Amino acid sequence: MEELKIAIIGGGSSYTPEIIEGFIKRRYELPVKEIHLVDVEDGMYKLEIVGALAQRMVEKAGVDIDVILTTDRRSAIKGADFVTTQFRVGGLAARARDEKIPLKYDVLGQETTGPGGFSKAMRTIPVIMDICKDIEELAPNAWLINFTNPAGLITEVVEKHTKVKVIGLCNVPVGMVKMVADMLEVDSEKVSVDFVGLNHLVWGQKLFVDGKDVTKWVLDKLSDGAALSMKNIPDLKWDPVFLESLGMLPCPYHRYFYMTDQMVKDQKKAVEEGRGTRAEQVQQVERELFQIYKNPELQEKPKQLEKRGGAYYSEAAVSLISAIYNDKKQLHVVNIRNNGTLIGLPQDTVIEVTCLIDKTGAHPIQVGTLSPKIYGLIQGVKAYEELAVEAGVKGDYGLALQCLAIHPLVPSATVAKQLLEDILVENREYLPQFQRTIEGLIEG
Amino acid sequence: MEELKIAIIGGGSSYTPEIIEGFIKRRYELPVKEIHLVDVEDGMYKLEIVGALAQRMVEKAGVDIDVILTTDRRSAIKGADFVTTQFRVGGLAARARDEKIPLKYDVLGQETTGPGGFSKAMRTIPVIMDICKDIEELAPNAWLINFTNPAGLITEVVEKHTKVKVIGLCNVPVGMVKMVADMLEVDSEKVSVDFVGLNHLVWGQKLFVDGKDVTKWVLDKLSDGAALSMKNIPDLKWDPVFLESLGMLPCPYHRYFYMTDQMVKDQKKAVEEGRGTRAEQVQQVERELFQIYKNPELQEKPKQLEKRGGAYYSEAAVSLISAIYNDKKQLHVVNIRNNGTLIGLPQDTVIEVTCLIDKTGAHPIQVGTLSPKIYGLIQGVKAYEELAVEAGVKGDYGLALQCLAIHPLVPSATVAKQLLEDILVENREYLPQFQRTIEGLIEG
Amino acid sequence: MEELKIAIIGGGSSYTPEIIEGFIKRRYELPVKEIHLVDVEDGMYKLEIVGALAQRMVEKAGVDIDVILTTDRRSAIKGADFVTTQFRVGGLAARARDEKIPLKYDVLGQETTGPGGFSKAMRTIPVIMDICKDIEELAPNAWLINFTNPAGLITEVVEKHTKVKVIGLCNVPVGMVKMVADMLEVDSEKVSVDFVGLNHLVWGQKLFVDGKDVTKWVLDKLSDGAALSMKNIPDLKWDPVFLESLGMLPCPYHRYFYMTDQMVKDQKKAVEEGRGTRAEQVQQVERELFQIYKNPELQEKPKQLEKRGGAYYSEAAVSLISAIYNDKKQLHVVNIRNNGTLIGLPQDTVIEVTCLIDKTGAHPIQVGTLSPKIYGLIQGVKAYEELAVEAGVKGDYGLALQCLAIHPLVPSATVAKQLLEDILVENREYLPQFQRTIEGLIEG
Amino acid sequence: MEELKIAIIGGGSSYTPEIIEGFIKRRYELPVKEIHLVDVEDGMYKLEIVGALAQRMVEKAGVDIDVILTTDRRSAIKGADFVTTQFRVGGLAARARDEKIPLKYDVLGQETTGPGGFSKAMRTIPVIMDICKDIEELAPNAWLINFTNPAGLITEVVEKHTKVKVIGLCNVPVGMVKMVADMLEVDSEKVSVDFVGLNHLVWGQKLFVDGKDVTKWVLDKLSDGAALSMKNIPDLKWDPVFLESLGMLPCPYHRYFYMTDQMVKDQKKAVEEGRGTRAEQVQQVERELFQIYKNPELQEKPKQLEKRGGAYYSEAAVSLISAIYNDKKQLHVVNIRNNGTLIGLPQDTVIEVTCLIDKTGAHPIQVGTLSPKIYGLIQGVKAYEELAVEAGVKGDYGLALQCLAIHPLVPSATVAKQLLEDILVENREYLPQFQRTIEGLIEG
Repeated sequence: MEELKIAIIGGGSSYTPEIIEGFIKRRYELPVKEIHLVDVEDGMYKLEIVGALAQRMVEKAGVDIDVILTTDRRSAIKGADFVTTQFRVGGLAARARDEKIPLKYDVLGQETTGPGGFSKAMRTIPVIMDICKDIEELAPNAWLINFTNPAGLITEVVEKHTKVKVIGLCNVPVGMVKMVADMLEVDSEKVSVDFVGLNHLVWGQKLFVDGKDVTKWVLDKLSDGAALSMKNIPDLKWDPVFLESLGMLPCPYHRYFYMTDQMVKDQKKAVEEGRGTRAEQVQQVERELFQIYKNPELQEKPKQLEKRGGAYYSEAAVSLISAIYNDKKQLHVVNIRNNGTLIGLPQDTVIEVTCLIDKTGAHPIQVGTLSPKIYGLIQGVKAYEELAVEAGVKGDYGLALQCLAIHPLVPSATVAKQLLEDILVENREYLPQFQRTIEGLIEG
Repeated sequence: MEELKIAIIGGGSSYTPEIIEGFIKRRYELPVKEIHLVDVEDGMYKLEIVGALAQRMVEKAGVDIDVILTTDRRSAIKGADFVTTQFRVGGLAARARDEKIPLKYDVLGQETTGPGGFSKAMRTIPVIMDICKDIEELAPNAWLINFTNPAGLITEVVEKHTKVKVIGLCNVPVGMVKMVADMLEVDSEKVSVDFVGLNHLVWGQKLFVDGKDVTKWVLDKLSDGAALSMKNIPDLKWDPVFLESLGMLPCPYHRYFYMTDQMVKDQKKAVEEGRGTRAEQVQQVERELFQIYKNPELQEKPKQLEKRGGAYYSEAAVSLISAIYNDKKQLHVVNIRNNGTLIGLPQDTVIEVTCLIDKTGAHPIQVGTLSPKIYGLIQGVKAYEELAVEAGVKGDYGLALQCLAIHPLVPSATVAKQLLEDILVENREYLPQFQRTIEGLIEG
Repeated sequence: MEELKIAIIGGGSSYTPEIIEGFIKRRYELPVKEIHLVDVEDGMYKLEIVGALAQRMVEKAGVDIDVILTTDRRSAIKGADFVTTQFRVGGLAARARDEKIPLKYDVLGQETTGPGGFSKAMRTIPVIMDICKDIEELAPNAWLINFTNPAGLITEVVEKHTKVKVIGLCNVPVGMVKMVADMLEVDSEKVSVDFVGLNHLVWGQKLFVDGKDVTKWVLDKLSDGAALSMKNIPDLKWDPVFLESLGMLPCPYHRYFYMTDQMVKDQKKAVEEGRGTRAEQVQQVERELFQIYKNPELQEKPKQLEKRGGAYYSEAAVSLISAIYNDKKQLHVVNIRNNGTLIGLPQDTVIEVTCLIDKTGAHPIQVGTLSPKIYGLIQGVKAYEELAVEAGVKGDYGLALQCLAIHPLVPSATVAKQLLEDILVENREYLPQFQRTIEGLIEG
Repeated sequence: MEELKIAIIGGGSSYTPEIIEGFIKRRYELPVKEIHLVDVEDGMYKLEIVGALAQRMVEKAGVDIDVILTTDRRSAIKGADFVTTQFRVGGLAARARDEKIPLKYDVLGQETTGPGGFSKAMRTIPVIMDICKDIEELAPNAWLINFTNPAGLITEVVEKHTKVKVIGLCNVPVGMVKMVADMLEVDSEKVSVDFVGLNHLVWGQKLFVDGKDVTKWVLDKLSDGAALSMKNIPDLKWDPVFLESLGMLPCPYHRYFYMTDQMVKDQKKAVEEGRGTRAEQVQQVERELFQIYKNPELQEKPKQLEKRGGAYYSEAAVSLISAIYNDKKQLHVVNIRNNGTLIGLPQDTVIEVTCLIDKTGAHPIQVGTLSPKIYGLIQGVKAYEELAVEAGVKGDYGLALQCLAIHPLVPSATVAKQLLEDILVENREYLPQFQRTIEGLIEG
């Protein structure tokens, strides 16, 4: 019988117990033999804590999986069947900077959307390119399941600049389905949603329960105040008139685009009142989590993990891996090469869309022509992403400047330039591709 | 010999002497027999002044053209060969409101760009639809040369919702060519520019003099402070690093997108300091102009007209009319159905692009794939325009709300809603298509 | 509990026992209450025989379905949930003419491909348009499952010229899957094929068993002589070198395009040797079938039915109806609006492609860019189909001539003209839309 | 003042006096200093004769152009401003084989269309690739003006597989314009035609004289028997009903597609009756021409040259070169990268279309959506061309087989295989890329 090898890059993450739980649950459909938790030297402290918990979980469940903790990425990748990425270059400290820098200029400070996401992408690109070189060499048939944010943008880097087979994954669509299911008090398998857009900019065009269109009903409920948000996004109310005229279900991150002014105001207020940015709050949550993980009695995923924003992340990942491995021809919402699915978007860019998953990968369900209600935003952000991909791969300052200047959330080229300089200088230890530019900036 | 009939809708405009001068200059290539200056009752005072001047100009020039002043639009259109539109629904007073309302919400207040342009479009759509019904009935072979702003959006209304043959025209590209020619001290016929984009959002992708690429040279000059602006747009300096990385020539209106924060700040300051909005300044210029026009000794276009922002407008129009009539196969930059020219934009939308003009109309020169540096902005604004066209034709409040909410210069759906309500209520006498909504808002 | 009403247009067909068997088999997932078998006056003899058999089958199975025999199409359609079409205008006699006329000019004579298919389409279009008018009026929510050949072309008529929700269906893809399954000795549910093309011109781009690519293996087997054909198509061997370089699985009908010369030769020989055309052979089979059907002891589908070419037809239909009704999110290969799925083909044309079926209909799986090995043939035949649709709906002789002149199997415009005249004159009683042209031809 | 260097590959062609005459005529707008006539060793006899005539022509005209005769291609190309190609690999003897081989299988035998054109392409591809390597190295800024047939296909080879700036040129559109001008008795500059399609498969969609649509008038005339053909194509009459329903002007080569049966019949008859193929007739014409050229008294292009089919070829070429050099912004019909001009055709393929010519090259005039009357044929032939390009560059037997099998003029894969083997074996000395396959065929 076949045996699967899994490599988890960023294995020291506090999310690891989730994905381990996922593999345990699906033991009967996924013959996983080895899970390699890989992290960098600086992450060893956390890797050892969470890795030990992972080992206890596997033991408790009585499954025959070896959990290996390592800093040797190449040995972990060698011959792997699936590589997943959940690393965060620079850690939460870098995220906190990403969230704070834009606020200086009254611009949204968010880890994946806007200049914060740009900053994170620039740090991540050199690392993902390195990982892909390893995969091309050591596991050319492996699937890369990319969670690392900004997930769509990073997936596009891999799609355009490497030969690695990649699918980008995000918990937002899964979360939206679960919350709709809760609102309707039905099982989430009965809900289906016509998703389309980009990562963290995805709309549910139509919502169905057992094939019946419930879009209007859900939007009305939402207008009445039903929750549809995520742990990491302030739950600002949607305007009923706006929602009705939109006629689709926005994702929680859409608040950053449709309610920009209020979101920025709230972020600034939080910092001023000493509540800190989201990263700073998460740092606190993480500290508590690792205290809990350390407990040698703990043999399963603790409930406290749900306070983190990433619920369903690993459920989504293991379920996707199983759909591929078992050729399930199941529907999953993933980030994948456009290839003509969204008419009007370049074919080689990455979109987030409902796909049929089988052993050969992810095949988008045809979407057809988009409403102008959403295509402008999609293309505006995609243009930014395309430039960010090129800027980050080439270390090109000019492209980076254009990229920030056209982002819908940045008010001017002047602010873009200031943001870019702050981002480059503050992340200088993580941006090898921009070293000469940064030296120039520092020397002045 | 053939004799041409021209109908000028909005004939009482202060620009009329320009277009009259244009027809006089081209008397040898355009056998114009009748020019009908049409205006509404409220405009008769101005029409009579400027019409009398037009008649004196024609007489002085010794050309055999009848200049007819009329409020009977149907008789003017009947059998016309060319209909031009230069009317302004609500006059400069409405424009002043368009410029002021957005400033209340710290949003750009401009006559054609942003919410101001939306407002102007809503007022104009019912009128242009009426004019087109007349043309369909009374002059089905006539060309409509549309100057009325927002020129691209209004041309799209005609293209999508009528059978009238239409070309939209703007003086911005002509002006950019003239200024480049001045910078280079060459004749403007030697300059050619690869224009692409939308009306008031058009880039010169490459600039040539006698076929030699001078793009970099011009951008460098511009960075050094060479003027490339228009009378009606503050001449904010371009950042050299930004321009170099853009690698194309932005149009003056791009300042509203690339320097939004500064432009809004300057507008607010001007109003606070009592300098008024642009409309208010123009009102003063117009008063002075009409005083000059009244002088029965005046027999030609007075120099003072150049203070208005519309230089080259009528030159461009008469030159375009002549290119059509004489089957010149000449290049003009006009607003025309996309039809596959800009890949990634819907085929039935209107773009601004270099076209070959012949007797059958305007034929775009193929542009191919656009850089992400510009396609995101183009598509963002085009999505707004598509929604505005539908909202304005149908009087659909929900579409109008979506339209403003996604405009790159509007910070949130909340502000969009406030703007929309102000615009609807303040323009109530000009928006028959929204009457029921407006009644609801006023009562509500 | 919901009860379904089914209307089967052309209910007197010898295939009817198949579809009845299908509904009996799926009684637990499809709550069918009424099946209306509709036919024209001339078909009453057959309708009564096959209808009586249908009623005995239902009775024997003990299911609570009313089988109603009628010539009142409107009452059958009224309130129907699903309408299926399996009628044949002009019967097998017309088919025999379709097969023979082209042979006069050394052109392929085939019921759905080439001029024979054109002829059948022209007869069918006025009838399907009438049926759709009834559906629009009497059962606007019904799904039309169209089997009537040429199935893709007729589906395109409905898609372009009516408001009826339509899916076109053919047994060829199902048959190909079954035969591949037989070759591999696996269950056909384990086989999946990446189908793309047009009806009767569909390629299996890649073949998988349990997600493993078996394309090469199957093509090798086929080269070694394994059967992959249909009852109604001569089983000419594929050239191994050709198949290998094609690298995809052709459908049986591809022989008409890839082996045109041999197919025409064989057809002519068959007629010369008195074996008759396929229609004439089928007429014999039908006579025998109806003799068998008459037997009042017979209470199930007789084995002899399999000699007809339409195996799996009704299995495919009932399975598709169930997938829609039960919102199965299952994959079926159907004829559906292109909508961007095949890049390079007009969006509003109908293609045959693997689709996800749910309660809202058929959603193509994205195909992306086609190989030039197949796109030329697809587009060549699609252009013919587009012209045939317009010619048949409008009764336009010129379009009909262009349509035949560009068909890949017609050697010249001269032959096209002769074919067209023969077809029009010989089908004069079935072509109301061409009456004036036909009168002109006959009067000469 | 700038001085131009021209390299003419295939300088020993009997057409050379035409192009020399062209450069002499345009001496005032094109400062040509050197014309290098390059040929292979085997062509030296002809090169010396025609080259000497060229030198006498230049001398007689009193222009300061050096005409250099050489077999050193690299020295000719080095630093050239324009390289033109008019070579014929294998000479007229190879052409005669191209014309005869298909006739064995009752398939059209023609130098550029069908299997004959395929054969010529295979011989030409290795040579054009070599020439382009030289240009890339020795004259990277040179324009390659490609006349070598099949001109569209060879231009696509250069466009897809080299970095050379290329424009493909054909005399067919120019010839069509001249003949329309003759029919209408107007100057050909007054005629403009909306050309679209592929090389030797180009339609005049609409025809204008001074901007007036004369399409119907011309088609009627043509139906009445007005000549619109070329020296090298039999002048078969067009059917009036067919022409009227086409509604566009076909090119002379369209007879091969619309009248295939008659053309093949005529070709076979000509061979049977000893009149020979076109190549054989041309060989006779050429022998006579070179006798005339030898005359040392001859100092200009002799009238007899017009018997060859290539009238206007060099006029078109020199006029194109001048339009580029002088940045004329003139319209020429050329073969150029599609780039979105013909919607539905791959962007990187080469089409024949009206272009604006300036110093930066050829810019297609937007065509928009094509009628199904023509898109099927265009795409059918383009698919063949795409495969031929790849087959010829890679020497791939399988692609070559697919390529011939799908050509609209080849009746089956079986015939395609026989044709391919004959073509490969008979051209073995000119097909280095297929050497191993050919050895296999000969041994096999």
